[in-house]
Amino acid sequence: MRVTDLIERKRDGGALTRDEWTALMRYYAAGDIPDYQMAAMAMAVYFRGMEDAEIEGLTAAMLESGERLSLGHLGRPRVDKHSTGGVGDKVSLVLAPLVAACGVAVPMMSGRALGHTGGTLDKLEAIPGFRTDLSLDRAVAQLERLGCVLIGQTDAIAPADRRLYALRGATATVPAIPLIAASIMSKKLAEDLTGLVLDVTTGAGAFMTRLEDSLALARTMIALGERRGCRTVALLTDMDAPLGVACGNAVEVEESIALLRGGGPDDVREVTLALATEMLLVAGVAADAAAARARAVRALTSGDALEMFGRIVVAQGGPVGLVDAPAAHLAAAPVRRVIAADRDGFIQRVEPRVVGSAIITLGGGRSRTTDAVDPAVGVLVHVRPGARVAAGDPLLTILARSEAGAAAAASELAVAVSLAEAPPPARALISHRVTAAGVEELPGTVTH
Amino acid sequence: MRVTDLIERKRDGGALTRDEWTALMRYYAAGDIPDYQMAAMAMAVYFRGMEDAEIEGLTAAMLESGERLSLGHLGRPRVDKHSTGGVGDKVSLVLAPLVAACGVAVPMMSGRALGHTGGTLDKLEAIPGFRTDLSLDRAVAQLERLGCVLIGQTDAIAPADRRLYALRGATATVPAIPLIAASIMSKKLAEDLTGLVLDVTTGAGAFMTRLEDSLALARTMIALGERRGCRTVALLTDMDAPLGVACGNAVEVEESIALLRGGGPDDVREVTLALATEMLLVAGVAADAAAARARAVRALTSGDALEMFGRIVVAQGGPVGLVDAPAAHLAAAPVRRVIAADRDGFIQRVEPRVVGSAIITLGGGRSRTTDAVDPAVGVLVHVRPGARVAAGDPLLTILARSEAGAAAAASELAVAVSLAEAPPPARALISHRVTAAGVEELPGTVTH
Repeated sequence: MRVTDLIERKRDGGALTRDEWTALMRYYAAGDIPDYQMAAMAMAVYFRGMEDAEIEGLTAAMLESGERLSLGHLGRPRVDKHSTGGVGDKVSLVLAPLVAACGVAVPMMSGRALGHTGGTLDKLEAIPGFRTDLSLDRAVAQLERLGCVLIGQTDAIAPADRRLYALRGATATVPAIPLIAASIMSKKLAEDLTGLVLDVTTGAGAFMTRLEDSLALARTMIALGERRGCRTVALLTDMDAPLGVACGNAVEVEESIALLRGGGPDDVREVTLALATEMLLVAGVAADAAAARARAVRALTSGDALEMFGRIVVAQGGPVGLVDAPAAHLAAAPVRRVIAADRDGFIQRVEPRVVGSAIITLGGGRSRTTDAVDPAVGVLVHVRPGARVAAGDPLLTILARSEAGAAAAASELAVAVSLAEAPPPARALISHRVTAAGVEELPGTVTH
Repeated sequence: MRVTDLIERKRDGGALTRDEWTALMRYYAAGDIPDYQMAAMAMAVYFRGMEDAEIEGLTAAMLESGERLSLGHLGRPRVDKHSTGGVGDKVSLVLAPLVAACGVAVPMMSGRALGHTGGTLDKLEAIPGFRTDLSLDRAVAQLERLGCVLIGQTDAIAPADRRLYALRGATATVPAIPLIAASIMSKKLAEDLTGLVLDVTTGAGAFMTRLEDSLALARTMIALGERRGCRTVALLTDMDAPLGVACGNAVEVEESIALLRGGGPDDVREVTLALATEMLLVAGVAADAAAARARAVRALTSGDALEMFGRIVVAQGGPVGLVDAPAAHLAAAPVRRVIAADRDGFIQRVEPRVVGSAIITLGGGRSRTTDAVDPAVGVLVHVRPGARVAAGDPLLTILARSEAGAAAAASELAVAVSLAEAPPPARALISHRVTAAGVEELPGTVTH
């Protein structure tokens, strides 16, 4: 096998065999194939795509490059959720304890913020003492005890993916659907899951801005999961505006606790309940969607989900009593500045990328993976597209470390919210449900 | 300037500015931009192409990354030839002394064999003692004295091209016309040439198999040369069969000496005279094509070209008397094996890649740049497409180091020559002449 021949074949629109992908990734993970050859291959894949068997071979090779959990002994279904990310998306923090409180094991493996999108790990680490870098053994022990653990991807899981993922970031080959699907699924399939629910975000603040790309990604990932016996379902959710009110690490933890108490903003609550419903269904612990949703709602109203979150926080090194008095434990920004509407009108757009970028400016996000993150800063988004506002109504609140930071963020955020005479066309908050059986359009919930 | 942004722009079909290409290549040559980013860029260029201004910027950046000759003091025109390569192509060995004998300075910079194509440097080094690694100062001194020097590309010339060229070979991004054109022209323009003649080979044994690719490459290189004041002309020549009889390093030197004596196979002689005519025209030393050709023919018949070659050989370390008794100085293969026609018929094809590959098997070529080359081995091709043969007529002679080598080559060469009842359609030996003014189809010479 000459690597240049494989690159050439892909470049010319051909397919590699499953064995060729296996060999390629094995040598790549071992350092025997240089980054420059894999970079050329990734760019060729960007232009030529991959056949289903190729994606499966790549996923298997990355999965098999590392350790895999073995969770059959838990005696209950194991379900995780993966989101393709967005701004203000704190769903994981609520969903994991909620579903665990319903008797399903949730080994949730999350990522960090990069670019305009936030990351669950950074949000969790806004909780003083919270550790996300547990060893796999400790994670399994916590799963046995509590039924839920919230960790980051370790070097032990899919190291070949880790190397390719970093390379793609440096070579403008991130947005290749086969590579995205293989990357996500190689990590998720290492968790020995019974089922997986995918939150495929779509819109200006998401990685995918076009519906057809989101559908293609969802279908590809579902095929990969189902072929390995993991029941996989995807919801396409709207990420054309920030989700909820709080955007920033500590404030998102606070909003998550409000959601776990049964309150919080409607849009996050709705997305969380919809994903929880799917997780309970793929886990096989509810007879139908109505029963699953009722059970999820009960976990919120009964306090079980909140109690589970409190136990997880303590188990992973966070403070006792966080859920009762979040403000006493979470970092607060010393400077607050409100941006108000300068006239009457309807909110046309709230640009998620502008909000995400302002959070980076404030020190709460990352433009490089090595950047440190300030948990206290952020932006509160008081309005959603379609809302009617009067001149003087607060649109955004900037939470800054300093006056200078607030001023810099305010100047960026000047273009974040646009007003018009009439409301914008409605967008579905959850537009499609994708399963192995096909695509269902969901006409119900709209964002406004 | 973020490199990923530049790659992304090219990936999406946009153009880089001239300054961006300059900066990219400067940092790349310095090692500050890693190979993997340039590999992704090269693959994006393969799919998206480059605009004229981009190719010019890239060429200029590679040219300016190294030293450049300054030859104005020679007091005569400086002309070089570049061929895109083939099998049995020993034209440079004849052409350089021939044109130099006509009063034109020829600073000829050549390459080595790679893959199925031969390389002028390897042929020259079949001459015992011949040095092709002269310093630029020594090369200029020889140009002043003799008017001709035959050297390899040094690290001093266009080092950025050298690095990119090696990378392209390892990443299946060689056949991107803008990158080929920029690579060739960045080296040629460093020679401070008055004029340049391009031999763009086309056919099964060439790099380009399609006429439109050859024309596109010719036009791109001509634009690059003319824009920098170097008169540039291209001939499209046939490389659908080996050129001449001798294929292999020592035997090609021998055939070159026969050509310099005014003999040798018709096809090589014709291509050489056509290229010589163009070189004398761009040099401005002949009034028209007829006068230029007559002058070139005279240099062969008078013995001036042969004498010039003998002087170059001695000046660069080769033996005195080589041209008078080549067999006394050149390595000969101990084993010869003839492959004969098994029936009557017309030669349909002589596959140049099969011949080239058999030479690698015999040890006379390279599959990797680090392979050593045996000068003695080779293949003599006694027939050209269209020739009528009778059963038992010799088709090929294998020149091998050992019986085992001959057997291995014979088994490869079994498919090299195909016979048919009728002759194949005629192909033009020199099909097109391309200048800044446009493309001329040349109806005259055909291969058979």
